[in-house]
Amino acid sequence: MPVGTQGTVKAVPQETLESLGVQIILGNTYHLYLRPGHEAIRRIGGLHKFISWPHALLTDSGGFQVFSLNELRKVTDDGVRFRSHLDGSSHFFTPEHSIDVQIALGADICMAFDECTEYPADRPRAEESLRLTMAWARRSLDHFHAHSHEVPWHEQEFLPPNGGVPPVPRIGGPGRPRTSTDDPSASRMQCFGIVQGGMYTDLRRQCAERLVEMDFDGYAIGGLSVGEPRELTLEMIAETLPLLPRDKPRYVMGVGYPDEIEQYARMGVDMMDCVLPTRAARHGLLFTSEGRLNIKNKQYAEDKGPPDPACDCMVCRRYSRAYLRHLMQSSEALSGTLNTIHNLAFYLGIMRRVRDALQSERAAPVLDR
Amino acid sequence: MPVGTQGTVKAVPQETLESLGVQIILGNTYHLYLRPGHEAIRRIGGLHKFISWPHALLTDSGGFQVFSLNELRKVTDDGVRFRSHLDGSSHFFTPEHSIDVQIALGADICMAFDECTEYPADRPRAEESLRLTMAWARRSLDHFHAHSHEVPWHEQEFLPPNGGVPPVPRIGGPGRPRTSTDDPSASRMQCFGIVQGGMYTDLRRQCAERLVEMDFDGYAIGGLSVGEPRELTLEMIAETLPLLPRDKPRYVMGVGYPDEIEQYARMGVDMMDCVLPTRAARHGLLFTSEGRLNIKNKQYAEDKGPPDPACDCMVCRRYSRAYLRHLMQSSEALSGTLNTIHNLAFYLGIMRRVRDALQSERAAPVLDR
Repeated sequence: MPVGTQGTVKAVPQETLESLGVQIILGNTYHLYLRPGHEAIRRIGGLHKFISWPHALLTDSGGFQVFSLNELRKVTDDGVRFRSHLDGSSHFFTPEHSIDVQIALGADICMAFDECTEYPADRPRAEESLRLTMAWARRSLDHFHAHSHEVPWHEQEFLPPNGGVPPVPRIGGPGRPRTSTDDPSASRMQCFGIVQGGMYTDLRRQCAERLVEMDFDGYAIGGLSVGEPRELTLEMIAETLPLLPRDKPRYVMGVGYPDEIEQYARMGVDMMDCVLPTRAARHGLLFTSEGRLNIKNKQYAEDKGPPDPACDCMVCRRYSRAYLRHLMQSSEALSGTLNTIHNLAFYLGIMRRVRDALQSERAAPVLDR
Repeated sequence: MPVGTQGTVKAVPQETLESLGVQIILGNTYHLYLRPGHEAIRRIGGLHKFISWPHALLTDSGGFQVFSLNELRKVTDDGVRFRSHLDGSSHFFTPEHSIDVQIALGADICMAFDECTEYPADRPRAEESLRLTMAWARRSLDHFHAHSHEVPWHEQEFLPPNGGVPPVPRIGGPGRPRTSTDDPSASRMQCFGIVQGGMYTDLRRQCAERLVEMDFDGYAIGGLSVGEPRELTLEMIAETLPLLPRDKPRYVMGVGYPDEIEQYARMGVDMMDCVLPTRAARHGLLFTSEGRLNIKNKQYAEDKGPPDPACDCMVCRRYSRAYLRHLMQSSEALSGTLNTIHNLAFYLGIMRRVRDALQSERAAPVLDR
């Protein structure tokens, strides 16, 4: 899932995301709450309408940014007090408030409010953090059940501002007319729980079991990719994944490098998000079939070849490394746009190949398995 | 002609320019000479290949930027010495060098090296400046005739880096195979002269007549939109235009506002360039059928309507004023992209309507004229 922090996947128009085959993007509740504000987005008809994205959307709980962008936060059992990174104003997030904000944004999937346990965390600290996360998960889900019908798009049709029609068929999302064959949950908002527990497999297990009892619509594994060695990330995923229902989406938050997302997807992870492909692109780091490529390097100054000879994306079909380097050296806005489009195409291509491979394995006769 | 200063119409991919119907863009010789350097672009195969723009391109002579970006320039009869705005290094431009650089860039149209007379300029100053411009025009054209065959794309076909094909038919430009019905000049580089003369109609006339004698491929009216009142701009165009051959392109440089370009086009001006639609866009100023709109204004914070209700561009069909304002307030790169696309669509729409109107007038029976 490409990350659309402030209601835009940085530097890429929604039309281009569609042509890349993006099915779902992520919005950051913390950022949208501060600007333009969730009530403004509610009045406009929800985040889908606001950003003109008639496909699936997921919002995080805001917790991660509250913790990572705020040195002076104050955590109590009730919630977290923090200062806006924009103007220093004071705000208080509780599980209930996070869910309220997410309902106002009206994504297809919202996330329970959790505490992302830092790394390293000793056992008492991880236990205490997990206690909060589990209590907040319960409160998030209860509040979600009581208020999720308040989404701004409930029973509405999606209409673009100028009376046009969405350029591609809807994949999911608000106001999609429900058909008899639909999963009933497809036309309502969903809420996912988040498994924490630091790097302690027994705490992870305890949390997973408790969340599954609560019966969320899907489950995320959070608190990973926070500085721990990659073997530990893998171990936590491998230990936790089997505890989560296979018939519900399983989502690993905040990962990762191309080989990581392929590995996790093959293990059974259904969803992942990361700023890496988009943020790295803006800094000139391209992911290619030949490895990582820093487009700023002088060696590409007169390189007429495409960024990735094996890539069929609109950037590789048209532009040379020399041109992309020039755009970067000249601080041109198009640099971020083209680099991001390629990196997203590369990431989405990995996921497409994994999906295809899983599909053929499934389609193969039993004897061949 | 949208301005593509550093080899990119800022924030807009070439694919989008094509879908907007852009037929020609302008590159700035001064900027491309300094970065990445004209020799690098020559080795890559010329500006068309470098930026992947298989349509028409025009380069200016570099003179305007030499004069406007350099406080410490030193002008002699031979040329201009100036310091790079990038690193302070010293450079010397002569008419011959400007043409050499433009041949290395290999646009379809290059411009004679001129001095853009400042405003206000008294009569002796305007006369002296004009003397330079006319001498430099002669030297530019002579050098062009002697060296224009050195364009990097001579007799070459245009091929994108990854073996793809240009997505839309070529409108003109390098390597287009010549057919028997073609104007022979269509498959070679062209050189335009620039009429200067300050705000003195007799000097303008003198310059126009001299340039026409020299027999350029087209003629520009320069030294306008440099701070003079608009009536003066209009007077200079009205006085100069009839002196320039109707069967060659007539180009007014550096204009203008939407109503200006419509007015000049109806007077017979064939080409215009201006950074206004693109630069204003990046600062949040949108041109619409309802007038100018500053998208930063608070009144648009929850405005669900399109930027311009009468506009059919991809931005107005999909995005709301509220969203464009949010992107601007959040300093998102997509802001510049979407605002620019709309402004270009608006400008191109004006020119399309003028062309259609002229065409129907021409098609109407003589009695109705």
